[in-house]
Amino acid sequence: MAHALAMARRGLGLTWPNPAVGCVIVKEGRILGRGTTAPGGRPHAEPQALAQAGAAARGATAYVTLEPCAHTGKTGPCAEALVRAGVARVVSALQDPDPRVAGRGHDILRAAGIAVTTGVRAAEAAVLQEGFLSRITRGRPMLTLKLALSLDGRIATSSGESRWITGPEARARVHLMRAGHDAVMVGAGTARADDPELTLRLPGYRHQPLRIVVSGGLDLPRGGRMEASLPQGRFLLIHGSAAPEEARSHWMKKGAEPIEVASGPSGSVDPEALMQALGDLGLTRVFCEGGGAFAAGLIGADLVDQIEVFTAGVLLGADGRAGLGALGVAALSEAPRFEMTQMQQIGGDLWQSWRRRG
Amino acid sequence: MAHALAMARRGLGLTWPNPAVGCVIVKEGRILGRGTTAPGGRPHAEPQALAQAGAAARGATAYVTLEPCAHTGKTGPCAEALVRAGVARVVSALQDPDPRVAGRGHDILRAAGIAVTTGVRAAEAAVLQEGFLSRITRGRPMLTLKLALSLDGRIATSSGESRWITGPEARARVHLMRAGHDAVMVGAGTARADDPELTLRLPGYRHQPLRIVVSGGLDLPRGGRMEASLPQGRFLLIHGSAAPEEARSHWMKKGAEPIEVASGPSGSVDPEALMQALGDLGLTRVFCEGGGAFAAGLIGADLVDQIEVFTAGVLLGADGRAGLGALGVAALSEAPRFEMTQMQQIGGDLWQSWRRRG
Repeated sequence: MAHALAMARRGLGLTWPNPAVGCVIVKEGRILGRGTTAPGGRPHAEPQALAQAGAAARGATAYVTLEPCAHTGKTGPCAEALVRAGVARVVSALQDPDPRVAGRGHDILRAAGIAVTTGVRAAEAAVLQEGFLSRITRGRPMLTLKLALSLDGRIATSSGESRWITGPEARARVHLMRAGHDAVMVGAGTARADDPELTLRLPGYRHQPLRIVVSGGLDLPRGGRMEASLPQGRFLLIHGSAAPEEARSHWMKKGAEPIEVASGPSGSVDPEALMQALGDLGLTRVFCEGGGAFAAGLIGADLVDQIEVFTAGVLLGADGRAGLGALGVAALSEAPRFEMTQMQQIGGDLWQSWRRRG
Repeated sequence: MAHALAMARRGLGLTWPNPAVGCVIVKEGRILGRGTTAPGGRPHAEPQALAQAGAAARGATAYVTLEPCAHTGKTGPCAEALVRAGVARVVSALQDPDPRVAGRGHDILRAAGIAVTTGVRAAEAAVLQEGFLSRITRGRPMLTLKLALSLDGRIATSSGESRWITGPEARARVHLMRAGHDAVMVGAGTARADDPELTLRLPGYRHQPLRIVVSGGLDLPRGGRMEASLPQGRFLLIHGSAAPEEARSHWMKKGAEPIEVASGPSGSVDPEALMQALGDLGLTRVFCEGGGAFAAGLIGADLVDQIEVFTAGVLLGADGRAGLGALGVAALSEAPRFEMTQMQQIGGDLWQSWRRRG
């Protein structure tokens, strides 16, 4: 199962709207075939692993990180493919919460006389496949927030200088994190301040995550880096209902897809409506890179599942720009809490991963 | 030498104005005696270790974390005591920069025919004895700044609630850090906001570090916890020249020692003059616990050697109170930089130790 989970990890960021699943076929201690859900979500992991194993799959054990599907989509159900291949045993990590599956995959296997064991390394599989589970059970993708901060929580000097607070090793890690998510998202403030490309620039990676800029009024910089980078991959512009038609058609002509979402009380995009819209698009894992006000809106609506903090050994002082906007937290007991799951020194910086506490 | 360094570590916070030194006497693989500079700075480590070894010290090797002293203070020089005891070899980590020693301790040993090796584990010894080295070479103690921050660099909610951001394990570690310093110091803002006792409350520790409150105008809370705690140990009040005589005599009557130091341009105590005054008092290791404005003054004058950061998994937002005041850093290249030397998860919090980059 550890191997199947590692196979699944390879698919993160590539398989939406489907989960990244890993499958390994084993007989007498030998690996006969292995597969990961293919980019775009098809073919699934199981038929790829079965094809590698061929006739040898008969009597083998299949390890899968999620219950094999039971519904006929563009291809037949994976559960039936496992039955046809004659595997003797299936070990799965999790039941698929998708209502089209929800135990029926395991039922098909059992009905065919296959021994089924479930719940193996379930906690790890739930973390790995959290994006898909979130989309199915909550209707929205899992949301990771990145914060690259000075020791005292700042992202820029008082004059606005922000490049670079963290070192090149930490910035490369951020690109790796982008690669593991379906989409990279920023608010309008960051788009205006940084005019970012939001592309993945990492040796050996050709896939570009979906790029999303959220701007209530579509008042975004024109003629700069962001506009020039639009043809390099799919680019969504999510705006409120008051966004001017002129701006919408300008960005459409440049290759962006403007998407209208309900506005919040301030006239900006409502965070809840935004995340539901992203779920409706099929997104499972979204990586938010600021800015501070946009991130505070997402935190305030309790939509952030994970925070990746990069702390640089530099002090910028209270006159520097804050990494997170106002939250209106008066009492400590109301403040959103997170627990640390990983930490590592990366170059001269410290990376920590914090998860929302239930 | 590792053992001698561990012996030295026991003395941290207890031996000022003297360094905390460790000494181990070894012959034929057996430890015959060991010593740490006694609380108050005397007796030194060497005579204690020699007394334990007795006549067996003849022909032995003495490991010391600092060059044995060559000057006659209240007792005779340690170098001569080692000669009298007949040790065959002395291994020391560092030469003592004190002008009364400065190589003369080693010279006395060599002149008596003792084999002397120096520079063993010198880097570790320099970190351990940094406070003393700082007092001798820079005329001021080493300064450690503690910051207990939310993930976004805040120390209190918008309403001022700050107890507690970090958990009980992290707070116990802070008390342990207090125990390893000669003095605990806060600015007037923290004294007014928290009315702190600044005492060490840790099972098994009876020694209280010197307590220091720095207040330009001595406008400090009266009749509260701080005032009630004054008899529990030595308490310095460092003030500017404009502090009213009435306040000075009030606090003297309560048991504090008011000490006047030059004022800076804002009328508050000048950070450089403050640190020189602390060096003149003989302090070697000072632990500053805020507040944000006072700490920013120390950082701005480049007086902070080490920062102990405790990061709690909580977000308070930009409307929360900043952990560090304004620094007036416009360009990133001017910002003070630190490098991480240690990190550890402590309870639900993350502790990191950062040292000033040379």
